[in-house]
Order: sequence, then structure tokens, then C-alpha cells
Amino acid sequence: MLSLVDLLARIRSGALTPNGAIAETLAAIAAREDEIGAFVHRDPAARASGFGPLNGIGVGIKDIVDTADMPTGMGSAIYDGWRPKADAAIVAAFRRAGATILGKTATTAFASSDPTATRNPHDPAHTPGGSSSGSAASVGAGMIPLAVGTQTGGSVIRPAAFCGTAAVKPSFRLLPTIGVKCYSWTLDTVGLFGAGVADVALALAILSGRGMEATLPSPLRIGIVRQDFAGAAEAAGDAALERAAAILSGAGATVRDADVPGSFAEAWAAHGTIQDFEAASALGWEYDARRDDLPPQVRGHLAAGRAVGAAEYDAARGVAKRARRDAKLLFAQCDAVLAHPAPGAAPRGLSSTGDPRYNRLWTLLGTPCVTVPDLVRDGGLPVGVQVIAPFAGDATALAVAAILEKANRA
Amino acid sequence: MLSLVDLLARIRSGALTPNGAIAETLAAIAAREDEIGAFVHRDPAARASGFGPLNGIGVGIKDIVDTADMPTGMGSAIYDGWRPKADAAIVAAFRRAGATILGKTATTAFASSDPTATRNPHDPAHTPGGSSSGSAASVGAGMIPLAVGTQTGGSVIRPAAFCGTAAVKPSFRLLPTIGVKCYSWTLDTVGLFGAGVADVALALAILSGRGMEATLPSPLRIGIVRQDFAGAAEAAGDAALERAAAILSGAGATVRDADVPGSFAEAWAAHGTIQDFEAASALGWEYDARRDDLPPQVRGHLAAGRAVGAAEYDAARGVAKRARRDAKLLFAQCDAVLAHPAPGAAPRGLSSTGDPRYNRLWTLLGTPCVTVPDLVRDGGLPVGVQVIAPFAGDATALAVAAILEKANRA
Repeated sequence: MLSLVDLLARIRSGALTPNGAIAETLAAIAAREDEIGAFVHRDPAARASGFGPLNGIGVGIKDIVDTADMPTGMGSAIYDGWRPKADAAIVAAFRRAGATILGKTATTAFASSDPTATRNPHDPAHTPGGSSSGSAASVGAGMIPLAVGTQTGGSVIRPAAFCGTAAVKPSFRLLPTIGVKCYSWTLDTVGLFGAGVADVALALAILSGRGMEATLPSPLRIGIVRQDFAGAAEAAGDAALERAAAILSGAGATVRDADVPGSFAEAWAAHGTIQDFEAASALGWEYDARRDDLPPQVRGHLAAGRAVGAAEYDAARGVAKRARRDAKLLFAQCDAVLAHPAPGAAPRGLSSTGDPRYNRLWTLLGTPCVTVPDLVRDGGLPVGVQVIAPFAGDATALAVAAILEKANRA
Repeated sequence: MLSLVDLLARIRSGALTPNGAIAETLAAIAAREDEIGAFVHRDPAARASGFGPLNGIGVGIKDIVDTADMPTGMGSAIYDGWRPKADAAIVAAFRRAGATILGKTATTAFASSDPTATRNPHDPAHTPGGSSSGSAASVGAGMIPLAVGTQTGGSVIRPAAFCGTAAVKPSFRLLPTIGVKCYSWTLDTVGLFGAGVADVALALAILSGRGMEATLPSPLRIGIVRQDFAGAAEAAGDAALERAAAILSGAGATVRDADVPGSFAEAWAAHGTIQDFEAASALGWEYDARRDDLPPQVRGHLAAGRAVGAAEYDAARGVAKRARRDAKLLFAQCDAVLAHPAPGAAPRGLSSTGDPRYNRLWTLLGTPCVTVPDLVRDGGLPVGVQVIAPFAGDATALAVAAILEKANRA
């Protein structure tokens, strides 16, 4: 994979110019794009910006995120060739930091679950996951060092695990969602894909204007949350979780199954109610004016959302509020949580983007999540874990993930 | 003024057809628009939808709110003639309810404070207030029965008071902001202007899918919050507040100055920090790519926002969170609050939209606010109050406002 940290180090040392870094990235895209199909639009003539901490860094932007100089298709025929007026806030922030936008990455329609044609870089017969399919696959294939995705259910953490990349879904609203096509205003979260934990940590620090270094307590307390309410994982998923626990235990942490607040199972179930109700409002024009042009899965979700009453939605929001409060009980027991990012490796076939069932709760809680990929392999495909910290504890989640990644790579 | 409730009653009785109601509304616009300048785009050939609870009701939409079939100019030359792809969620909701969108109403650039050319319907030498200038003025001038505005500082409640209309700024996110140009994601709130309290209550009930009737406790407890931290009001503003207190007291309520939580003054001051920081992110493209095309006040706010550091912003968010919690202490003492919607009547001249200093706190708290206009007059201009209830107590705020309005009109 192309590492942001490595590229910047090579630029700083004089071994590479910023334009050389962009050229190397464009060549990496050209080498694998036909096989992967990660991009829906590319700028093959892109150049380095000439300024800023991300000078020379080429970025891929999920195609539900507005760009003033590239079409933004929302993964939907309805928006084919659509050109927004302005850059989304996250795109403007990347440009201010000197990054170069290299293209738009494939997304499921409106970041829902109808699959794209993108292929998993580890095996083209498998899904890369979704909805940030192209962002995960392009980084996982070594085509670009950094990509923007969004997570409403499990659209960052899960495809990262499937494609063997690191990723961060930061604390809710740490990165701005303005100019990102809304699916659920309570849930939509902008996240980042990179080659390793240090790469996404550096990008998050630059984009958020916040330090992402943490001094971890000693001994570090790790809680495992198996999310039984979401059903059992596959054997490979459990093996990855056990391996992560063993690594952290070996590094001196106390690792044990956490006592999970009772409201979490209820909150997990409430996620869908909130997501569907808000999507039916946010995508009201698409559903009312262009229903026949919507692919089946998103159309079904919107129909379900229309059937959710205000009282049911308000009750679900009440459950979410209680669970966010109860997250304090969880994080009183431990400094960070280990959980499955997905049931197992990327499923075979391109007809499904896989199951977000282990991601929903944390998206609803707004807690920072980091994918540490490739702890075990299953049929050649990487299987990882996610590290979760309390709200605003992004640096903690990244620091724990970095320990895990380092020991795993050693 | 044109009343939504009256129009619907006349349609129901057979005295008026839905298309007759639209024709009457278009005639009212034609009669006063040259004098007021409330609209930036109109559909003079509009017809009734033929269905739904708002069949025959013509609505004006603030021009920072996306419409698929009309330009959306954001009050800025940068967006001159811009055509969004989709309707904003609130516009789609109006169309689903059978309303007819008659036009786009004048807004200050990006709903900030650079004034528009719109005139106050009670005296063309005075401002209608802002940023929802055209929405307030068009309803106040009797041109349309219903208009959509947004409030980030004081852009609904204040212009309503200046133009002598009722208005509701509902609980935060009760009406969806998707497709509304974002200034501050923590603060932006969609609100409604109507001829009277019953009109905005009915519209809010239809659009939100929630009942807006409340059984008020007896005796009703009213707390006055003078917001001394925001400075003194004008004599006419104080007279309106005293008159409202006397009316409610006469109607059997206990009315007294509330004990205001100490965090409120701090939260009032934190509002600007949050607003500026988020605006600088949300309007990042406009500031970076089109700075010279921004009018001076919004440009100044964005420059100020760029200077706010993440730590300062996070501290301000912490203050806001504390104040939202402390609002429970306020509403333990009273069922609803009376406060100034503005320092006094609409200021003379069109060079300022007036002062939002009495609105900021409640926008930040996310509490429902209702303008009851025209309790006293100052130089012929109406001066009102706002009624405020706890978060999600929209029906309570509307019920108290209805008592006040009825006694005031009697």
C-alpha cells in the first residue's frame, strides 16, 4: 500500500518531489484500476498543490461528497454527471492542507447497500464492502495513500477490514459532513482510509486541527465487546479478535470481556429506525420525484422509512440518548474496546457489500472507531478488528490501534 | 395578513377552491411586491396541487433552501442563477403535504447579516429584519400565508417580531435542515412564519407529523428571562414584555422573573464562537475560492471563524452542553418563558437587519420559540415577545403563545 507517512518522509528527505509523489500515485492507479474499478472519475493530469502539509498527497473522495471541479454522481443514475457548485467542507479542508484530489471513488447509491462493480484488491471475486467501496479498495490496492469515506451503518470500518486497510471513523462530527449527501443526520460520519494507523492519525490531526497523540494509561485496560445481540461472528472473525486480545495482553494490557450496558442491545436495534426515518426525509425528493430510478435496496429502505411514525422515531432517539449516556459505564471499566469490524472476511461475490451489524451500535454512539486490518487471513482475505474509545477519545483509539498494528506487523 | 387556517376553512366550506386560494395569494403578492421586495424568484403561473392537507396553500421558501424547479441564489452573487438538483427535505415535505411553492424569498448572503433590499411591510423606511427577510416581510405584508425561514442566531423570531407575524423556531432538528445551505450545523434551525399562532402550529403539525395541541397545567407558571447578559432592551421592548406578563397574569398564570442558571450568560457568549468556527468550515469553499465575491459582513464572520482554534471551539461546545443540561433547572421553575424577540421595533434604515442578541441563547439551547407579535407599537411598528418552552415542548410554547395572542387581539 502507499503510505501517507512514507510519502511525506520521502518528500521531506528530498528523495521525492511533491509532483513526483503525485506521479507515482497516478501510476499506481493506472496499474490496478482496470482490475479493481475503484474510481468513477479521475483527474489523470493532477499536479501537486505546491503548499501545505499534504503537498504531494493524492486523495480519493467518495462520490457522495461534493466537488466543485468534478462530477458527483451519488452512485445513482439520477445524479449522473451532476456538478455541485461548491466543494464539501472536508474537500475544502483537504485542499487548504495542500492535498490533491485525484478522483471520485465508487459508492453504493446514496451510500446505502446496493452494490457497486468495485472488486476486492485481495481477490476480485469478493466484495470490497460498502458503501465506501471505491475508497477502501483504492487504498487497499495500493493505488492512493488516502481516501475519504462515510459511515452511517458500517461503511468505513467494515470495507477497510475487507480490503486490508486502516481506517478511522472519528467521533461524531469531528470531520464536517457539510456537502456530503445526507442519508441520516444523526449517523452520517466522515471517515478516512489509509495504509496504516499512523497514516490515518496524521491525516485526522491535520484535517481536524487537533493533536492525535495520546499517552495511554498503564496498565492499559481493554474491554472486549462481542455484541452477541448482533449474532455470532464467523470463526475467522473470532480468531482475529482473540489474536488482537492476545497481542494487547502480551503488551501488558489487562484484557477482559466488558460488562455491556443493557441499553446497548436496544440501541443496536434502534439504529435502523433512526436511519430509515431520516433517510426517508433526507432523500424525500429522490423518493417522491425519481422513485423508479432508485435501485431496489435503497428504495426498500426509503419505503421502510416512510412507514416509521414520528413517535417510533422519537422513542428510538430516546434509546440512543440513553445508550450514549451508558457508554460512560462501559468506558469506566476500560480505556478502549475491541470488537468485530465485520462477521469475517469479505464475502464472495459482488451481489452484497457484506453485513454492517457489528458497526451500527458504534455509529449511533458516535464513538471513534479504528480498523486494524489483517490480523488473520481467511482464504487469503484479511480479517481484522476495530478499536473503539469514548467520544472525543480519537487519539486513544488510534494509539491502541497503533500498538496492535505494530505487534501484528512484527 | 393571509391566514392558513382561514384559507383552509374557506376551502373546506366550499367558499373557495384550492386554485382560487392560490389565485388570491398570487394577487396579494402582485399587489405589494413592488413596494416590499420580498421575493427573488416567483412562479406567477402556480396552481394548486390538487391533493393533501395544504392543497391551495402557497408557500414562500427562503432562498438558501434548495428547490429543484427554481433557482437558489443563497443571497449571493456566487450562486446567481444556481439550480440545485433536488428539493430540500422541508420543500419535499411541503410538496408531499400538497402545498404549492410560489417563490423564493430574499435572504441575506448565506443567512448572515449583510442586509437585503427587502422593506418592512409596516414602514418601508425600516428593515424587515434578517436573515429570513423576505419570508418575514411577505407574510407580514399579507402576500402569502406561510413562509419558511431559518434561524442560526435570530433569523426567524426577530424578523417575525419586526414584521408583525407569528413564527415558530421549533425544537432543534424537528424540521429537517437537509438541502438548506449550512452556516452552523449546531445552530441552523428551520422555522415557519404565519399570520397567527394557530397558522404556524397547524403547519408545524402537518410537516413534523406530530400533534401540536397541549393541555397546559393549571396554574400555568411563566418565567420571565430578561437576558441582562445581552444588555438592556429599548423601552418599547420592555413595554411589550410587561404587557405580555400582565395578559398571562390576568389569565390566571403565575408570572415571575425566573432564576437563570449561571451557565446561560456563558452559553450566550459561546454562541458566536460555535457559529463562526462552523461557518468557516461549512463555507470553506466560498471563503477559499470566491472570497472577493462575499459581502463584507459574512466575509468578516468567516475570517473570525478561521481564527477560532479547535480548543476554543471545543470549550464553547462544552459550555453549550452544560447550558442545555441547566435548561432543566429553568424549566423546573416554570412551564414556559417570556423573553424579548429583539431589543425593540425594527430599526430605521435598510443598512442593518437589527440585533439578534436576545435570540442566540435559545438557538444554542435548541428550545422551541414562538413569536407573538404586535403587543405594543412604537412609531407605528409592531413590538412583540417570544414564548419559549423546553426542548420538544413545541406544543406548550404554541399553546401559551395562542393564549397571549388571543387576549392581545381581543
